[in-house]
Amino acid sequence: MPDSVSSSRDIVTAAMLVIGDEILSGRTQDKNVSYLANRLGDVGIQLHEVRIIPDIEAEIVDAVNHCRRKYDYVFTSGGIGPTHDDITADSIAAAFGVGIDFHPEAMTILTRHYETSGIEFNDARKRMARIPDGAELVDNPVSKAPGFRLGNVFVMAGVPQIMQAMMDSILPALQGGRKMLSRSLSANLPEGKVANALGALQEKYPDVSMGSYPYFRQGNVGTNLVLRSIYQDKLEGAFSDLKEILVPFNCDITETS
Amino acid sequence: MPDSVSSSRDIVTAAMLVIGDEILSGRTQDKNVSYLANRLGDVGIQLHEVRIIPDIEAEIVDAVNHCRRKYDYVFTSGGIGPTHDDITADSIAAAFGVGIDFHPEAMTILTRHYETSGIEFNDARKRMARIPDGAELVDNPVSKAPGFRLGNVFVMAGVPQIMQAMMDSILPALQGGRKMLSRSLSANLPEGKVANALGALQEKYPDVSMGSYPYFRQGNVGTNLVLRSIYQDKLEGAFSDLKEILVPFNCDITETS
Repeated sequence: MPDSVSSSRDIVTAAMLVIGDEILSGRTQDKNVSYLANRLGDVGIQLHEVRIIPDIEAEIVDAVNHCRRKYDYVFTSGGIGPTHDDITADSIAAAFGVGIDFHPEAMTILTRHYETSGIEFNDARKRMARIPDGAELVDNPVSKAPGFRLGNVFVMAGVPQIMQAMMDSILPALQGGRKMLSRSLSANLPEGKVANALGALQEKYPDVSMGSYPYFRQGNVGTNLVLRSIYQDKLEGAFSDLKEILVPFNCDITETS
Repeated sequence: MPDSVSSSRDIVTAAMLVIGDEILSGRTQDKNVSYLANRLGDVGIQLHEVRIIPDIEAEIVDAVNHCRRKYDYVFTSGGIGPTHDDITADSIAAAFGVGIDFHPEAMTILTRHYETSGIEFNDARKRMARIPDGAELVDNPVSKAPGFRLGNVFVMAGVPQIMQAMMDSILPALQGGRKMLSRSLSANLPEGKVANALGALQEKYPDVSMGSYPYFRQGNVGTNLVLRSIYQDKLEGAFSDLKEILVPFNCDITETS
């Protein structure tokens, strides 16, 4: 297969649903999106969309059903704890039109955990063993209450440490495509100066996505130029051309990672 | 009107669209969502949804048209610079089915800016004066290239300093509803312990939204409990009840803001 013809398996896509009022209220700064994007990138999965949605079942159902049909994978974070506002498992069951019940394996894991730690395994905590029918558990090495996978949807906790540990459990099961490679540089010139040349370069390399991100730091204006492609040779060719293009501008260039 | 009956103007909603590959690639950590959420909260507008989407016109059009019909306001960030990957203005025009052309006032602002700073006002920079028909400009005190408002959609830059300055220009024009008030505390007990009592409290106060957010810090387990309502009296009643509920648990409580 020629390098520039993508098979459907070259490009593998994902969406993330961040479920929870605390991000939308501005109280909490999300930390999970960039973590997930980077870990997925490592295994050749491209994050194409993120939605941050409230703890409302109809909203979760709509977003899950839209995204699971559109993307190869969907990852959710948040809403799988023991409190009344944790409605993600029920919402996923509703999205798939399946039942939800206490999962024997989840009950075993949690019973053992609470016995060992001498904490009461009360009704609220038992809610965390309610898993949609047909789902497989996702290991939670931090606080034991499992996430789960149903179809192409992976359901994780919102607490960053737990979400990250769950991603470690999930990653080996994912089928990635080609990795998105990138080369980037920072130049101390305004992006408007290089915009025309960059546009022409983009036309020359349709398989290399070129992003231009201006910055304003301590009174200095500059631009980060980021080239991304699944094709190593095209990426290197475009990056080499980019550096050529910048020579006449007599600017300082720093290659970045 | 009784305190607990909401008029349509009590609740004013918004969505935010973060446009740009750099957040989705994991390269850049978003800083605009929490800023926007907090500023909107200050004027009584509730952020109900955020979507982070790539620089693809069809994706932008779909998200804008969905959100502008569903929410009172839509705010976008990103994609209004001079480079080829800046396609937000064209996408907004496409979403509304209107034309797009050089806006006389935007041309005047940019012509003056580049004359004053001795920088060439080249074709790429002129792209930043292309504004959808019928839109009003949004002032950009940082780098001059304006944002704009079309219908209930406000289009802003993605660079945080500029986005924040544009929000300052926009805020006086927004019609907010009742402000969402909040009271919160941190308790050094696992949320599973208080979950049942909290669920009962939520049933007692349907107009107060109660969120429970566990944390794990340096080996210590604890829970942040956040109560939110547009009704001050109900919020205070619920918060007072919450503190009562926690007394038997003999935990350390810190009221937080």
